[in-house]
Amino acid sequence: MDTTTEEERRANGRNDVEADVSQSTESDISNMAQRLAEYSPQEAMNWALARHGRDCAISFSGAEDVVLIELASRSGKPFSVFSLDTGRLHPETYEFIDRVRGHYGITIEVFSPDTTAVQNLVREKGLFSFYHDGHQECCAVRKVEPLRRALSKYRMWVTGQRRDQSPTRSDVDTLQLDPTFSGALAPLLKLNPLARLTLAEVWSFIREARIPYNPLHDRGFVSIGCAPCTRIVRPGEHERAGRWSWEDATKRECGLHLKPPADYAI
Amino acid sequence: MDTTTEEERRANGRNDVEADVSQSTESDISNMAQRLAEYSPQEAMNWALARHGRDCAISFSGAEDVVLIELASRSGKPFSVFSLDTGRLHPETYEFIDRVRGHYGITIEVFSPDTTAVQNLVREKGLFSFYHDGHQECCAVRKVEPLRRALSKYRMWVTGQRRDQSPTRSDVDTLQLDPTFSGALAPLLKLNPLARLTLAEVWSFIREARIPYNPLHDRGFVSIGCAPCTRIVRPGEHERAGRWSWEDATKRECGLHLKPPADYAI
Amino acid sequence: MDTTTEEERRANGRNDVEADVSQSTESDISNMAQRLAEYSPQEAMNWALARHGRDCAISFSGAEDVVLIELASRSGKPFSVFSLDTGRLHPETYEFIDRVRGHYGITIEVFSPDTTAVQNLVREKGLFSFYHDGHQECCAVRKVEPLRRALSKYRMWVTGQRRDQSPTRSDVDTLQLDPTFSGALAPLLKLNPLARLTLAEVWSFIREARIPYNPLHDRGFVSIGCAPCTRIVRPGEHERAGRWSWEDATKRECGLHLKPPADYAI
Amino acid sequence: MDTTTEEERRANGRNDVEADVSQSTESDISNMAQRLAEYSPQEAMNWALARHGRDCAISFSGAEDVVLIELASRSGKPFSVFSLDTGRLHPETYEFIDRVRGHYGITIEVFSPDTTAVQNLVREKGLFSFYHDGHQECCAVRKVEPLRRALSKYRMWVTGQRRDQSPTRSDVDTLQLDPTFSGALAPLLKLNPLARLTLAEVWSFIREARIPYNPLHDRGFVSIGCAPCTRIVRPGEHERAGRWSWEDATKRECGLHLKPPADYAI
Repeated sequence: MDTTTEEERRANGRNDVEADVSQSTESDISNMAQRLAEYSPQEAMNWALARHGRDCAISFSGAEDVVLIELASRSGKPFSVFSLDTGRLHPETYEFIDRVRGHYGITIEVFSPDTTAVQNLVREKGLFSFYHDGHQECCAVRKVEPLRRALSKYRMWVTGQRRDQSPTRSDVDTLQLDPTFSGALAPLLKLNPLARLTLAEVWSFIREARIPYNPLHDRGFVSIGCAPCTRIVRPGEHERAGRWSWEDATKRECGLHLKPPADYAI
Repeated sequence: MDTTTEEERRANGRNDVEADVSQSTESDISNMAQRLAEYSPQEAMNWALARHGRDCAISFSGAEDVVLIELASRSGKPFSVFSLDTGRLHPETYEFIDRVRGHYGITIEVFSPDTTAVQNLVREKGLFSFYHDGHQECCAVRKVEPLRRALSKYRMWVTGQRRDQSPTRSDVDTLQLDPTFSGALAPLLKLNPLARLTLAEVWSFIREARIPYNPLHDRGFVSIGCAPCTRIVRPGEHERAGRWSWEDATKRECGLHLKPPADYAI
Repeated sequence: MDTTTEEERRANGRNDVEADVSQSTESDISNMAQRLAEYSPQEAMNWALARHGRDCAISFSGAEDVVLIELASRSGKPFSVFSLDTGRLHPETYEFIDRVRGHYGITIEVFSPDTTAVQNLVREKGLFSFYHDGHQECCAVRKVEPLRRALSKYRMWVTGQRRDQSPTRSDVDTLQLDPTFSGALAPLLKLNPLARLTLAEVWSFIREARIPYNPLHDRGFVSIGCAPCTRIVRPGEHERAGRWSWEDATKRECGLHLKPPADYAI
Repeated sequence: MDTTTEEERRANGRNDVEADVSQSTESDISNMAQRLAEYSPQEAMNWALARHGRDCAISFSGAEDVVLIELASRSGKPFSVFSLDTGRLHPETYEFIDRVRGHYGITIEVFSPDTTAVQNLVREKGLFSFYHDGHQECCAVRKVEPLRRALSKYRMWVTGQRRDQSPTRSDVDTLQLDPTFSGALAPLLKLNPLARLTLAEVWSFIREARIPYNPLHDRGFVSIGCAPCTRIVRPGEHERAGRWSWEDATKRECGLHLKPPADYAI
């Protein structure tokens, strides 16, 4: 008989949920998601790494999602980290990614766009097509395709998405079946341990725990993406106002976190 | 019989409130304050300028209080503007003050610290004493004394204070008897037309009305004061977090807006 | 009988030099080089484009070599331009490359590093290996290999090299047989029309002709390369002091302009 | 009989020149100037401080003239330092002045403009009159009058002027009788120990001796004055090109170092 308390089980990343996603029915995953919704960020991370270890990869953008790496590091368990180098990040972001690598003593696998795809896009439309016909085409080449390559190796990925980030993220759950990047035979889980935190809570944690952060945050940047598609947040603006600021706020997703169609159930 | 509506009277800056403050009893002023509390910022400005004209001076810091000048300009009435040049403003702020001067075609009277007082402070304590023993002494020399000189010429001054700016300003009223700068014989009124606006509302107005603003706001600054005592606001921080950031949040007033003692009644 | 003067022939880019390099003996090219040494930058460009047209490509780095594009544009002849996008250029340089594209109404072919090669380098050594074991390995992946791909299409390329740039360039000639990028069967010529100009002369031309230039030049940058490997030039320093500043001044070439061995004759 | 060598005497700041300027004839001073012309910067500083001690004041602008303070500090003798705070210096320059104060453990007397004079200028002409009718009027209020006040206490002042700085300084001598600030009864000497150094030599010294310097020098600034009247030096430009850049190069003196009329003899 297992006499461990629920709290102890969470601390060790254990619960009754079946870990083998490939065998899970949709209803299994739905149950898991409900339980995870009540986990703290640290508990959720512990659970994920206990289940999947290096098959669970943190997607690190070089911004405040460094918190995910801190949580994984605190878990004491092995984990994987990757970043997408779009070729257009701020110089400060490249420095920060390398600083995080050294600070935590980890390997960060960096994925680059496909040479031919990016050359073709630039030859045809120049280096700033996104200002004219939207960011989707450039994101597809510089982020989504490399992400698809990255995720092909993993069972679960971990992101820094939060509900308070934007209208497009108001119903993010701690655990989701990834509708976009799951393969036909290999379902992919997405863990969003910070889903229910506010921006202020994330930053209180960063400051109190003295976690290294991108110096752009000290220069007015809140959410950070590619340099030409990110500007600082102005007085009275929402945190995501600095991303693709010339576009409609309801379309500001790069394709990494497209929501499933309305009838899609996990 | 006056058949003008309340709205018309407000639009012209007229009401029944006795304008001659020097003759007003405290109870008169208290009545005025109650009525003004319901005025819009434009109505409050109209009222003030109709009553006092050039004897009413807008205190312009070079930040988002440019809104006050816009309101005054829209009133179509004469008005005065002054700024305090502490000698330590950002280069961008000096440029902005001059730009506002040109944009509205107005005179901005600029007050400088007393030569001897500032030289003595610097000789004794260097140029950054505020980091060591608090900003009060430097503000006294560079802001408060020049403000006292400036206000000696006026019956009323207009500031950009808002309730949502800080814990020290949560009970700011649209109209107040200034407890600090009133002379023995000459009571001084302080008008805070933006008292009940939020930061977001002020900035919506600035953007929609295309009012010129300090370029530092596009570089992460929200509240702007002297360069060494202002930093940008970091993610998740309150708008005044950038002012005297090394000090306790309950002491971050420069002396221009010290609150009256608790028993002080207007 | 040809009655055109030498000056007229230069103006039209014509001279007696045999243009078909693949048929040229070394002595032919040596004769060409001697004559070109006396040509002005505009004359040299005219000559090259008259001979090779679109088979002659300007290598545009996003810095003051924009002068080459101005010269080509003034020639009235067709020409090709390519840039190497290392993935680590300054955001301002990407903007400038696109601005030049629009200003001159030209296509700029942009070459990117090989996906696998750059991912392997970063996985193994991180994003800043050059600070530790020299810039050669990173330049090989991000500049030299893409350049080799680019040059495979051309008979001649045009660079902004100048003799006064550095000790490594003191004997640059206006015309050279490229010892590094020539194929076994297809010799490649390199034209350096600015070889004998000084930095001050180049900049006088840019300012007087109101040629668009990289805004980094207004922020203290002289020579501009990749962001992490370029810093501004400090007071009293030479113009190339800002490139790979942590390395020995005699090794500061990225591999695009390696000198032939001493016994190599053109 | 004095058996000390010339070199020993220089090292101790001793020579045969009569130190009491007020008693000196013009011919005495002319002799002094001739001898000083052969002194090294350190020898010249030693000589001056041995003669005048605290009556000899270094004029420190917050730029590379920090070298003067280093020399004075190395002399082991007492000395005075003053700065002119125009009220329009860069924030970085104020920080640097304070840093120098701490680094050398010295008092820097800071002189501010006269309150009324500066207020009158700004009321009448705004904060940027110099862009429209020249910098002389503003410099007179913010620099020259405070300098006159500062110099009234001293017998000699020390400046960082160099011959290679500009066409207006090509004949600067190591020792000069100050034609502008000498009183009727009290002649004032001006020592320019760096007169014959080049910019590159000054900066080699700063770097090799690890002397603290204004961080603006790492951002492209060479000569540094007031913020609105200084810009960085662009590629190919002379070091003083950044000062009052909208004005004729032959008029770029603030009034501190006006040359004597041609017939003026020292």
